[in-house]
Amino acid sequence: MNNDKGIVIIGCGAGGGTAAQFARKTDRKTNITIFEKTKYPQYSKCGLPYAISGKIPKITDLIEFSDEWFKKQKINLFLNTKIEKLDYKKKIVYGKKQNQLIKKSFSKLIICTGSKPFIPSIKNLDCEGVFTVRTIDDAEKIQKYSKKSKAATIVGAGFIGLELADNLYKMGLKINVIEALPSILATNLDEDMANIVLEKINPDVKIFNDTIVTKLSCLNTSIRSVFIKNKKTGVKNTIKTDMLIIATGTRPQVSLAEKIGCRIGKTGGIIVNEKSETNIKDVYAVGDCTEYVNFINNKPVLVGLGSITVRQAIAAGINAAGGFYKLPKGILLTFTSNIFDLEISGVGLISNLLQKDTYFYGKYNGNSLPKYYPGGKPITIKVLADKNGRILGAQAVGDKAAQRINTYACAILAGFNVETVKKLETAYAPPVAPTLDAETLACDIASLKLSHRR
Amino acid sequence: MNNDKGIVIIGCGAGGGTAAQFARKTDRKTNITIFEKTKYPQYSKCGLPYAISGKIPKITDLIEFSDEWFKKQKINLFLNTKIEKLDYKKKIVYGKKQNQLIKKSFSKLIICTGSKPFIPSIKNLDCEGVFTVRTIDDAEKIQKYSKKSKAATIVGAGFIGLELADNLYKMGLKINVIEALPSILATNLDEDMANIVLEKINPDVKIFNDTIVTKLSCLNTSIRSVFIKNKKTGVKNTIKTDMLIIATGTRPQVSLAEKIGCRIGKTGGIIVNEKSETNIKDVYAVGDCTEYVNFINNKPVLVGLGSITVRQAIAAGINAAGGFYKLPKGILLTFTSNIFDLEISGVGLISNLLQKDTYFYGKYNGNSLPKYYPGGKPITIKVLADKNGRILGAQAVGDKAAQRINTYACAILAGFNVETVKKLETAYAPPVAPTLDAETLACDIASLKLSHRR
Repeated sequence: MNNDKGIVIIGCGAGGGTAAQFARKTDRKTNITIFEKTKYPQYSKCGLPYAISGKIPKITDLIEFSDEWFKKQKINLFLNTKIEKLDYKKKIVYGKKQNQLIKKSFSKLIICTGSKPFIPSIKNLDCEGVFTVRTIDDAEKIQKYSKKSKAATIVGAGFIGLELADNLYKMGLKINVIEALPSILATNLDEDMANIVLEKINPDVKIFNDTIVTKLSCLNTSIRSVFIKNKKTGVKNTIKTDMLIIATGTRPQVSLAEKIGCRIGKTGGIIVNEKSETNIKDVYAVGDCTEYVNFINNKPVLVGLGSITVRQAIAAGINAAGGFYKLPKGILLTFTSNIFDLEISGVGLISNLLQKDTYFYGKYNGNSLPKYYPGGKPITIKVLADKNGRILGAQAVGDKAAQRINTYACAILAGFNVETVKKLETAYAPPVAPTLDAETLACDIASLKLSHRR
Repeated sequence: MNNDKGIVIIGCGAGGGTAAQFARKTDRKTNITIFEKTKYPQYSKCGLPYAISGKIPKITDLIEFSDEWFKKQKINLFLNTKIEKLDYKKKIVYGKKQNQLIKKSFSKLIICTGSKPFIPSIKNLDCEGVFTVRTIDDAEKIQKYSKKSKAATIVGAGFIGLELADNLYKMGLKINVIEALPSILATNLDEDMANIVLEKINPDVKIFNDTIVTKLSCLNTSIRSVFIKNKKTGVKNTIKTDMLIIATGTRPQVSLAEKIGCRIGKTGGIIVNEKSETNIKDVYAVGDCTEYVNFINNKPVLVGLGSITVRQAIAAGINAAGGFYKLPKGILLTFTSNIFDLEISGVGLISNLLQKDTYFYGKYNGNSLPKYYPGGKPITIKVLADKNGRILGAQAVGDKAAQRINTYACAILAGFNVETVKKLETAYAPPVAPTLDAETLACDIASLKLSHRR
């Protein structure tokens, strides 16, 4: 392998850090350099809502790999360092740390520039008390501000928004959540499944669906109220609030990749293949700045999940260091969360992404234990399948939802039909699971519908 | 379908009851008759240890389908009814209930005669205070007797034995468990995995491995002590006890099936196919009285798990009633239990069943949550694979072990390799699961070993 000038990685989030780690595992000697514009090495962004509330004791606990760890691994990590110039022809990256210019040649480049929060158009956004939640710095500011606040408004009822709602509510704040779409978690769950979550959200947390924030009003530069408007009815309302947190998704940061000719896909992310390669020789890209194809329908999707970022980074790190690692031909978009003590999980496509009459579903609403055994918890599973019964997606809400969905992830990867999964021999014991687990019963119901169609 | 004389089912355990239920779902009109020798309709045998301790409030709570339920479904259930004669040529079953002879013609017969406890050779077994645990009657006797006892000895450290140990210990009894094999749970777990369980068992519960019970001694007809002998060292010992429970497995009851010519396999069970058919036309068999092939190595195994019984019964019921239902070509032997608050699960083959040098394993010992998130619990997963990496079995001990093993059940059914499962996109969120779940990391370790072999 011609890797004599080593590997340069841009960005030390979960993608960059993991890529470096696996590059080092693959090649004990090659030069590995990471440029990171913030002062923090790899940390968990997904943990931010829990660190704000103190569920995770210190925000800096989120740092998964310290400076020292990178040093021990002989990985050159430059924090507080922006990219000044990227010369692809000469294969040199110039980083700037304060007034110091750092020049690094590379044989392979891994771009892990992540994404930045999407900010909807709202008047007076420059009020004090308005936040996004993307970095440790954001979390520290929110934590500090929330301690002197009584009410918080969150824009966006996706996972981050609702996880924040949950955590800030537990800190004692009055919470309002404003969502432009017709239901919460609309990009992750079907509406009927999202409604189970909605019921579990403490009624003191007010959710406004179909609603946008139009304007903020400030008093002495600090936010005091939020003007909202229902998109369907046109009804306007004003909510008093001490802080506003914007959690309306992110946009990939691709300008650096674009400059050197990396192809950007329809979703706005850098196009990568199953080896995490871009179209440009010796250039890899990983994580939130990329798009990859969906395993089920082959359509491009933005990689917005830490779990996928880490997997892409393993591939990029190993391949850049001269090893060989291929991901499956597409991503499953397996996700989970826990909102107001309810576990939520899903994999594959949801109904909104499917054309009417091209699919059907089975939904099972039951208990995690046999009826006669005390302590069972509700579990609802919905499975979507095409007209031949092939599983397209599954959603679960309730007991051990994530692990139940992992089985579906495996089933989708196998191309399994609902007929196969309904017969899956799941583990049974009275204190653990019923003879027929919810994950098989959802398929049983789907299979019954399938047989009626035929 | 020529089903005019209807279906007769012998035995109303989980097999017979479920077969009747699914036969009725398939054919709303046909005659369905069940003969059951005890006074109880379908109940959960697996729940007996928990009903004894009162964790399940009443032993009769275990009854899953009542007399009334069968009546409503127009299924003729004859309890307390033994089989007097089975005339296969004329297709007539004669049942005897007290002095009443019940004659039923059938078009299809489903044999669900179950199994009976295996009793090892022990002197003075006729002492009072000696029990097996197979029926509600057994459980009632044990419960009553244990309330006046201070110490119990359990023969057999399989699941039933250890579940009993756990439950009787929680009732306040001093417990000794005598196991003839070198480790606990020896037919279900590799020794290293079983040892994790052993560590979790309260030290007040004494386990004697490699040990057999040779003799009991009685005082006034009641058991007072147990003579044990270590098979390896020859060392003898005496244990004071107020009761002895034998949990050394079961033997299939096949005499009725044998009489009409059903083929009995090497394991002693009735041979059935994926439609739950025996070799005799129009005769099905289901559950503990049968053997079926192992999905992984095609070798016959005794069906000793309620989960498999129920699945076979679904097939038998539907097929006998004129429908069509095929099980997968073999069983995975997925199991779970919870012993001393530790969840245990497994699927497929264990090392003892594999020839040396034909397989290798990956074992991961970690945590169920990311390091930075409080409340994570230990989880250990061991995966066995053949020399090409194809997964042969998996065992898990710890957090959500059963659901994690269900994913492996699906992976084995798909014929997946450790390379595939190590890349499986599992659900991640800080309060729920780490970015790389234990179930993928066990395969990662296995895959590393595989690459070193190549």
